[in-house]
Amino acid sequence: MLIVQKYGGTSVGTPERIRAVARRVAGVRRRGDDVVVVVSAMGETTDDLLALAAQVTGIDAPGSRHPRELDMLLSAGERISMALLAMAIRDEGAEAISLTGSQAAIITDGAHTAARIREVRADRVRAALTDGKVAIVAGFQGVSLAREITTLGRGGSDTTAVALAAALEADVCEIFTDVDGVFTADPRKVPGARVLPRVSHAEMIELAAAGAQVMHARAVEIGARYGVDIRVLSSFREDEGGDDAPRGTRITREPDRMEELALTGITSQRGHAKISMRGLPAGMATATEVLVRLAEAGVPVDLISEHTEPTGRVSLQVTTWEHAIEAARGVVEELVGRLGGGEWEIRQGLARVALVGSGMTGRPGVYARAFRTLLDAGVDVQAVSTSAISITLLVAHDREDAALEALHRAFELERAADPSRAGPDA
Amino acid sequence: MLIVQKYGGTSVGTPERIRAVARRVAGVRRRGDDVVVVVSAMGETTDDLLALAAQVTGIDAPGSRHPRELDMLLSAGERISMALLAMAIRDEGAEAISLTGSQAAIITDGAHTAARIREVRADRVRAALTDGKVAIVAGFQGVSLAREITTLGRGGSDTTAVALAAALEADVCEIFTDVDGVFTADPRKVPGARVLPRVSHAEMIELAAAGAQVMHARAVEIGARYGVDIRVLSSFREDEGGDDAPRGTRITREPDRMEELALTGITSQRGHAKISMRGLPAGMATATEVLVRLAEAGVPVDLISEHTEPTGRVSLQVTTWEHAIEAARGVVEELVGRLGGGEWEIRQGLARVALVGSGMTGRPGVYARAFRTLLDAGVDVQAVSTSAISITLLVAHDREDAALEALHRAFELERAADPSRAGPDA
Repeated sequence: MLIVQKYGGTSVGTPERIRAVARRVAGVRRRGDDVVVVVSAMGETTDDLLALAAQVTGIDAPGSRHPRELDMLLSAGERISMALLAMAIRDEGAEAISLTGSQAAIITDGAHTAARIREVRADRVRAALTDGKVAIVAGFQGVSLAREITTLGRGGSDTTAVALAAALEADVCEIFTDVDGVFTADPRKVPGARVLPRVSHAEMIELAAAGAQVMHARAVEIGARYGVDIRVLSSFREDEGGDDAPRGTRITREPDRMEELALTGITSQRGHAKISMRGLPAGMATATEVLVRLAEAGVPVDLISEHTEPTGRVSLQVTTWEHAIEAARGVVEELVGRLGGGEWEIRQGLARVALVGSGMTGRPGVYARAFRTLLDAGVDVQAVSTSAISITLLVAHDREDAALEALHRAFELERAADPSRAGPDA
Repeated sequence: MLIVQKYGGTSVGTPERIRAVARRVAGVRRRGDDVVVVVSAMGETTDDLLALAAQVTGIDAPGSRHPRELDMLLSAGERISMALLAMAIRDEGAEAISLTGSQAAIITDGAHTAARIREVRADRVRAALTDGKVAIVAGFQGVSLAREITTLGRGGSDTTAVALAAALEADVCEIFTDVDGVFTADPRKVPGARVLPRVSHAEMIELAAAGAQVMHARAVEIGARYGVDIRVLSSFREDEGGDDAPRGTRITREPDRMEELALTGITSQRGHAKISMRGLPAGMATATEVLVRLAEAGVPVDLISEHTEPTGRVSLQVTTWEHAIEAARGVVEELVGRLGGGEWEIRQGLARVALVGSGMTGRPGVYARAFRTLLDAGVDVQAVSTSAISITLLVAHDREDAALEALHRAFELERAADPSRAGPDA
């Protein structure tokens, strides 16, 4: 069996933790499996390097001015952790070799600080495995065809791991992190939240995009495209992982479920805002102009909805992030004036709650149950949007936890996993 | 003019110092010169990384067990400093690009932790210069033909700088450090010590090999072989360097001297020991066997001398370092017994004082003056050795400073540089 394991910064944050990871990896290797380890920079290393760059340049985001050099700087972080981990694995009696993103031939485009993976050649990774070695690959970094060092941006190490698993046709990609798996909701906000034994790639993408911190949607998208089985599990537990380990969350192409639950999980994210404009001219040109002007001003738009008013004119509602509100205000004022619109308002302090589950498809009652639940809980819905497997609701910050708890209970997410649903590793 | 500048770890030890270096480099560039900057890791970075490796592995010298991974680890240090310096130079308005040892194609053999440079291709360095950019190259590191990251060991960054200057046929290689240049003797030990305006490569090699910390002999050897003009100067002074700057020490093929001083400088180093064996069989076989057995036991030999005793047998005296004495003791005892030798003794606590100067060639009085001086100063000479341009003397630790001061005075090293000697930059 070929296993790709990824360890985040917390999992290799200290010499002791590096040794603990080394013991687990060496144990898997002793069992006879081939192992590729993808590793992030230790603990706060990346933040420390960013702080140094900020001190040298006098600006908070040196990447905007010096993207190439910031990538060169940050790529030092994984070099440190991977070399230390290689030493520790060798000390555990297994052969190991560390490889930079460049040595492992993680080929990216040239977009510094946010590069996309073009191709994973991984010849030296394969050679290491053939030699019976554990291959340790730097996460988060790659090399462009112009031989420039690049970094992948947010979710970069997860992305490296899943892309490598796809290229090597690994049996599983294990994402070791500091939580026990993917939860039905944030356990700090919803006491009844529990770890999901299985979710589909599509569900995980929705959960991640809606704010679940455990994995970045981008990495899961690669997993979906190449059919990579991903397991999310805690690096702070003792067992060695592997196919039959009884914990964590498995993210697969299509979870084998006899009986569906309507919902898989609920997640939320603060810092959203809503812009409402009324009395605008009808027609596609209006919404188009609003979206173009907002984009030109650097205001990202999340949800959008349009309504025709009794007068024949339309009202437009878009949601965005609070940090973009100052940029948005002038644009909206100018637009509404020029288009001869009526009143407009901006509402900040909103949380975006997402209900995710492929089980909701073709179940019209879900929508109704969600709204009924929130009405009963006294939570006002500020905006709503749906996809095939998700419902997104905007509520006020101070009602966020009440909404999460009520929905979690209403959709019975706290009940123990149904054996017929969870499959063999429940 | 093409200038290679090298900055050591202290010179780039803080964000402020990195900015100061950037100002100097940008100033040189504005003057119209092409600049290649070789940079060491910041301040204590290398020591911090070594300490991390020691914590992970539980041994003090992880390089002995994991040489490849130690090189991978340590090479992160220069990545950090060079990326930060590139940002700072760009902020000063000059174009700049940082290049790893691998990107600059510093090709080495595969001897991890102590690699030797085979070839400097430097294509990307030349391309950067053609584009009008300052090229910043990681010191201390290279890449083997097997595409493994290597480090050069002691004196590595100086070696990178001089090798690059040779490959690029630079006009001068400026070594920026935390002292004002090459001194006639250690100014902490000899109050009258002063900066030498010029020395030859050969003299500098002798001075460096004899313990002068300012530059490593290895780098100067490359300078001698390829005729690279080297300037050693302080990074903590204001002027911008360049051909006509009035400070530091210039190391050149043959300093232009109308009238020679006998000596150029004196240096010393503690921690030496002397082994004396008497009554050994005459003939080459004896010395050979002693040297072979010591080498097998890992005992390095510095000086060696042989004397025929009145009996026809010989006495042999070798000097080594104190750290090797325990390994030497058993070897010597066994050898002397087996060869039917007489008494033997080991004397520790010796300092090795070296008098260096090409002016001593063909001046028999130098030897005599040195011994007369030490006799007058009450310093006992334990061993002596000479080369064409140096005299090496072993004295007891507690007489080291007295020997240095007396010799410095006797050879008039503290007098102001003779204008006819020092050339235009005195």
